[in-house]
Amino acid sequence: MIVTVTPNPALDVTYRLPALRPHAANRVAHVAAQAGGKGVNVSRVLHALGRPTLAVLPLGGETGRAVRRDLEEAGVPHEAVSIEGETRRTVAVVDDVDTTMLNEAGPHVEEQEWAALRARVLQLLPAARVLVVSGSLPPGVPAQAGAGLVELAHARGVPVILDADGPALVAGLAVRPTAVKPNAAELAAATGIDDPAAAAAALLEAGAQAVVASLGPDGLLVRTPEGCWRARPPGGVAGNPTGAGDAVVAALATGLAERAPWPLIAADATALSAAAVLAPRAGAFDADAYRRFAAAIRAERLTPA
Amino acid sequence: MIVTVTPNPALDVTYRLPALRPHAANRVAHVAAQAGGKGVNVSRVLHALGRPTLAVLPLGGETGRAVRRDLEEAGVPHEAVSIEGETRRTVAVVDDVDTTMLNEAGPHVEEQEWAALRARVLQLLPAARVLVVSGSLPPGVPAQAGAGLVELAHARGVPVILDADGPALVAGLAVRPTAVKPNAAELAAATGIDDPAAAAAALLEAGAQAVVASLGPDGLLVRTPEGCWRARPPGGVAGNPTGAGDAVVAALATGLAERAPWPLIAADATALSAAAVLAPRAGAFDADAYRRFAAAIRAERLTPA
Repeated sequence: MIVTVTPNPALDVTYRLPALRPHAANRVAHVAAQAGGKGVNVSRVLHALGRPTLAVLPLGGETGRAVRRDLEEAGVPHEAVSIEGETRRTVAVVDDVDTTMLNEAGPHVEEQEWAALRARVLQLLPAARVLVVSGSLPPGVPAQAGAGLVELAHARGVPVILDADGPALVAGLAVRPTAVKPNAAELAAATGIDDPAAAAAALLEAGAQAVVASLGPDGLLVRTPEGCWRARPPGGVAGNPTGAGDAVVAALATGLAERAPWPLIAADATALSAAAVLAPRAGAFDADAYRRFAAAIRAERLTPA
Repeated sequence: MIVTVTPNPALDVTYRLPALRPHAANRVAHVAAQAGGKGVNVSRVLHALGRPTLAVLPLGGETGRAVRRDLEEAGVPHEAVSIEGETRRTVAVVDDVDTTMLNEAGPHVEEQEWAALRARVLQLLPAARVLVVSGSLPPGVPAQAGAGLVELAHARGVPVILDADGPALVAGLAVRPTAVKPNAAELAAATGIDDPAAAAAALLEAGAQAVVASLGPDGLLVRTPEGCWRARPPGGVAGNPTGAGDAVVAALATGLAERAPWPLIAADATALSAAAVLAPRAGAFDADAYRRFAAAIRAERLTPA
């Protein structure tokens, strides 16, 4: 079982309209909503792949209930830790030009609520083949909290992926996560280095045991003490990039669970991520495209400077 | 008791941020939410004035529960008719420039759900001094539905205010509501006439027993078969115009309940509306300003062409 933790989940709402008019009244033509948050999306992908997974997340209020109901309807196994605050929403306003995101910060999570979530993760670790800690921390939870979950996993000998950015990523590196998965912007922000291979080396130096950098249309860069690999998606894959990084984490978690070699993990993650771009919703992927891409993509070994 | 019906209520959500950036990711600095919809706002104002009121509204889903909880916390008496669909939300994105409104259409309300709401109104009418039907109709409910409520009130001898626009206003005029309350845009759209006094005369002709037109900073125009009156707010009242029209309806309902003369109703509604502009939220008003304005404002009789 792959256990995902989503510290700050959301109800992801999508508003569709022809053209967003700022500072005017806009009629929303179509409304959709689904449970979201990075770890939740990872569990969605794993569930669609038929892999055993469990999404652990704090939930509160009416929006928390809506998240829970959506996960139930989707059949994604989950365990909610109740919190007093109201789970946040994100609103994606999609018009004919592009998407405008409105991201709520999320509820304040109290110390004892976070402790309850940690305790639940600890109980689940004996059954976990990989732990995934993915997405932002909610207000009230210190940057070290992600690192704390990494340490729990280490103590039980469970590989752990940390998909975080900013102070939470920096704090996490110190306790040596099995892998981190920054995107290009997060990689550059964390290291101050523009070249992805050099920046990934800096994250290894800082403590990561492996760095899997998702570079959008430029594919994936994997850097470990054993080497550096690059896998590229097929050309012309256009669609919805939201959730593509979560598909990378799902493939990475599967690969770690199966002790797959890094070039295969890199190729598989690139294929799954490209197939996710073709699906309209985060956490979904085009299964036919995934098979085609997986058959075609190979990772190449790089010899970085 | 003044009974208000809100056919398509909402949870009104306010997002505050320094500057909305279209087609980019926006962090929402502050989130607030309250039960909304025009009839709900009318009941809020009446409740704050210490007038007995009851808000009747269809509610469904998690958002319906959030609306109900907010009304409970605010102490506004209400009766919800349960519906299968999910109550809508409106999102007001307030930045340092102005407000961007995102208005969901609302849930489909089934025929038997609307029939249940009508039945509840019918039960309440013996205790009602005035019925207020205010705001848009939800998807699935025909334009004649508002007129149907007007007819229920007429059959019980209860004065009824219809605050609607478009086809619902046109359908309502045919059954002779005690008063309608268009704003300037609705008045012009319903009649094709720019001059408010002439447009109000056309609505009388079409069936309204009285027309109370809220003209924003230009104040209020009342036109009945007995005459035409104009009341103007004090100069320099700036703030939040959302809900100012609902304050007019609250004052109008109170005036009808007390059989007040039209010049007094016009002056009182203008004062309450201006005091509502000074309050940051719809359904609230500045009580001190209301007293000051009410002492100062007099309606003048017009002799329109």
